Amino acid sequence: MTNDWKTLAEAKKKSVDELIPQEWRIPTEIKSNVLGLHETFGILNEKEIAITKNYKVKELLSKIASKELSSVEVATAFSKRAAISTQLTNCCTELLFKEAIERAKWLDDYLEENGQVFGPLHGLPISVKDSHFIKGVDSTVGYVSFIGNKAKITDDAAVVKILRDLGAVIHVKTNVPTTMMTGDSENNIFGRTLNPNNLKLTAGGSSGGEASLVKQRGSLIGIGTDIAGSIRIPSLSCGVYGIRPTAHRFPFEGNQSPTRENALCPISVVSGPIAHDLEDLNFVLDLILNHSNASKYCHDMLPIPWNSKIELPSTIKVGVVLECDSVPIQPPLKRIIKEAVSKLDKNSNFEIIYLKGFPSYKEGWATAFKLFISDPKDESIANIFKSGEPMINSLSKGGMEVYGPPPKIPDEIFELVSKKNEIKNKWIDLFNEHDLDVILAPGAPHTASPHDDFGIAPYTTVWNLVDFPAMVIPFGAVDKEIDQYDDVKIDYCPCTAPSYDKEVYHGGPGHVQLICRTLQDEKLLKIAELTDKVLNKAI
Amino acid sequence: MTNDWKTLAEAKKKSVDELIPQEWRIPTEIKSNVLGLHETFGILNEKEIAITKNYKVKELLSKIASKELSSVEVATAFSKRAAISTQLTNCCTELLFKEAIERAKWLDDYLEENGQVFGPLHGLPISVKDSHFIKGVDSTVGYVSFIGNKAKITDDAAVVKILRDLGAVIHVKTNVPTTMMTGDSENNIFGRTLNPNNLKLTAGGSSGGEASLVKQRGSLIGIGTDIAGSIRIPSLSCGVYGIRPTAHRFPFEGNQSPTRENALCPISVVSGPIAHDLEDLNFVLDLILNHSNASKYCHDMLPIPWNSKIELPSTIKVGVVLECDSVPIQPPLKRIIKEAVSKLDKNSNFEIIYLKGFPSYKEGWATAFKLFISDPKDESIANIFKSGEPMINSLSKGGMEVYGPPPKIPDEIFELVSKKNEIKNKWIDLFNEHDLDVILAPGAPHTASPHDDFGIAPYTTVWNLVDFPAMVIPFGAVDKEIDQYDDVKIDYCPCTAPSYDKEVYHGGPGHVQLICRTLQDEKLLKIAELTDKVLNKAI
Repeated sequence: MTNDWKTLAEAKKKSVDELIPQEWRIPTEIKSNVLGLHETFGILNEKEIAITKNYKVKELLSKIASKELSSVEVATAFSKRAAISTQLTNCCTELLFKEAIERAKWLDDYLEENGQVFGPLHGLPISVKDSHFIKGVDSTVGYVSFIGNKAKITDDAAVVKILRDLGAVIHVKTNVPTTMMTGDSENNIFGRTLNPNNLKLTAGGSSGGEASLVKQRGSLIGIGTDIAGSIRIPSLSCGVYGIRPTAHRFPFEGNQSPTRENALCPISVVSGPIAHDLEDLNFVLDLILNHSNASKYCHDMLPIPWNSKIELPSTIKVGVVLECDSVPIQPPLKRIIKEAVSKLDKNSNFEIIYLKGFPSYKEGWATAFKLFISDPKDESIANIFKSGEPMINSLSKGGMEVYGPPPKIPDEIFELVSKKNEIKNKWIDLFNEHDLDVILAPGAPHTASPHDDFGIAPYTTVWNLVDFPAMVIPFGAVDKEIDQYDDVKIDYCPCTAPSYDKEVYHGGPGHVQLICRTLQDEKLLKIAELTDKVLNKAI
Repeated sequence: MTNDWKTLAEAKKKSVDELIPQEWRIPTEIKSNVLGLHETFGILNEKEIAITKNYKVKELLSKIASKELSSVEVATAFSKRAAISTQLTNCCTELLFKEAIERAKWLDDYLEENGQVFGPLHGLPISVKDSHFIKGVDSTVGYVSFIGNKAKITDDAAVVKILRDLGAVIHVKTNVPTTMMTGDSENNIFGRTLNPNNLKLTAGGSSGGEASLVKQRGSLIGIGTDIAGSIRIPSLSCGVYGIRPTAHRFPFEGNQSPTRENALCPISVVSGPIAHDLEDLNFVLDLILNHSNASKYCHDMLPIPWNSKIELPSTIKVGVVLECDSVPIQPPLKRIIKEAVSKLDKNSNFEIIYLKGFPSYKEGWATAFKLFISDPKDESIANIFKSGEPMINSLSKGGMEVYGPPPKIPDEIFELVSKKNEIKNKWIDLFNEHDLDVILAPGAPHTASPHDDFGIAPYTTVWNLVDFPAMVIPFGAVDKEIDQYDDVKIDYCPCTAPSYDKEVYHGGPGHVQLICRTLQDEKLLKIAELTDKVLNKAI
């Protein structure tokens, strides 16, 4: 029986791989940076290269609406590019190419018959993390024991329904780590998602497949989930934009959980978009959150419309966290963050305030970690062993031995929630004290690490703990010529990545993380647009 | 030692009573309806009668702003009326007459010197429930063991600070039951608050002092708190307007709790206004919630401005709960609710939909009750016995023997939170299914009951459990001539009031409760205005 899991997993993977048409297959195994290879295999024709490479979302949509491009052409192009991407980096789980092209055909017919588009996202291919339910499709989230669970999936996820109402086309689901609770997207069914910038580096997790696919333009926008950094970690690892909205602002209902939903944990898992381009991300977020059906499809959506017309103050006060002493960051990322702050400081729109006396990230992590595992009937680990499959590597390194066992009596949970509130209040005090508009901080103690070394996630989790919206903006990269020091003796925190090695980390994308107060998601996006211009678009 | 509590309590009560000037004392003991008596004692002069009787808040404020009335005159008039009110019904705890008149003097000087008012509530006397902190003033919330706790109170409550920033004058704090967890406002320090409509009936609780005072126009607006109905129960018992806003929309920080704050309980206690007039309530709510300092004074305020410009649909769909079978309501209230629905039904602005299949109120109560007492270190009862004082009557009848002991292991709390979510989702489904704008329901199984018989509060608590904003509108009254039946054999729920007795309940105010979805507080207020017009203002 214990080897049956292999048969099951292999059969499942084969059934998915077979959905890649023979003529979309790439010839050889690739070993390093794969960006730029997609167009070299002769699978994408010139028009398909243009479709997947040249446009922002709005441009693509207007070309479909004006019939310059058909939805079928666009769905086919992105399906091909996703097929190539997953062959290169193992970023997809369920391949819905056939369904996507059929849906695109229906949309083309609709446009022809009605003389207008079905919705504002008419014909846009969008990918979703494997956890999001689609009727008739498995949501294994990497568990062999979940193979075949499509039989139990009777409804689409809320965001899938909204995307369809808006006219989008779902062409693939994307890969995750088993349990979705590590920073490396590996599982025993679909294998490991690789980082397209450097196959030897992690793509991050748990929405690793999504970020890897988006980086490769196999999708211009995708939907991930985040309870401890699962949108932001892969975004910063792969070098794309990702936002963890305030809890209950983005439709989450209809996601496969690794165990029953944890009613004791005051930290909510949220869905949110990952995109190649910030304008695209903002555009789609606006449409999804303002959709009139959102609160009907999703019970716990807050009825707060997305207000993209919000105005920023003339000077944006940025509170900077360069590093939390309790979780030291690697030298290249420190350089990158400093460069970002220096660029903002030179711009008259920004005022920089270095923050001191903020709550310990290590304590924040320990608090959140124990709350995550506070359900006395948590089966996220047991669900691995049900099939006989072994635990993936990054999970074995998880840190339970360091951060302790699950809380047992109500009083322990009580203390954890009180600690969470205390930490949140301190951050609010800092916002008030300095009249801050935004916080700028690292999103991790390091850039993309070697596989299975991402470790714990205090730099993202602190914002889940206090429920502040947070997003990652790519900026810079590790450069072994600049970041010379092979190893700096730092007392790294238990379960974080090991010391910096210039040969290993070279080429990994840099980033900054921006954070606003609870429910100030629109403000965060506006500030992110301005920040992105200064960091990435200035001459 | 066990009798020391009496000495302490009597000394405290005496120290408060002494703050009523000799010339403000009323001569005799009163036994029944006291409304209308306030102006008969010769304590209020003609001008003071006019000040306290003739104006809405905005009118009063404009008279102060134009110097037709001074702040001192207004503060004196309401202080006198509050002094009379508390002598009649025992509705106040701390008497801040001296401070109020001093503050009013300062405001008068400010207006004189600056030629403009200090803030939009310049000179308005406002009362607050005893739990709200004021520096230098006790917040005993009825516990003998808390006498003298002013020594520990280092800051004003957030709402007190905002009211002061707005120019208001706090002239009294108001009475509560010990623990603030029963529907009868009695304690061993200040005694029992009486219902001004009929002294033999309860004023409700736990904000009973506030509702009683406001009904007597000892204050036009006051601030209560509500975790299970503590604003709405006294409002419906005394016949005034009271709203329990969505959690974290109204500043709550700085309230004396009967025990440490329960971090395990997902139901938040909230502050909210009680008013004699709906327009006044809306006016002050708008000012408080839109105050720029609100989120600085209060950590957990949601940064959502109060939007009083919201527009209602042309037809308001009202889902009606006449009664939940699991908690039967007394015949007079049933008649009153039916009359209200019938009035709305005849108005073209409203469409009535009778709701069926909603979650059991009794189950909702049991779920909430166990969550309220889920802190393993709950000291709300222990804090009574610390001084040796005995438990008040209504608490002894509390229902622990019926609804069971506190949950002990995390799993029990887990199940309670899951049950809460399940109940909330069912109510959301009902809103969606019928496209409802609002729910109209009773706020209790009965009108104001005899003392110590209010019992459990399932009709208010269900909305705390699901975090929907809910408010009470007075409408009609029990009339022994109409409501003839002395006793109807109904299988009443354990711990609710006993059967109807026309002689006892006669004269008690009727009401309806209106409820909107989470965060739709503005919508609720707008619908309440329209409803109030149809029920109470139509010719």
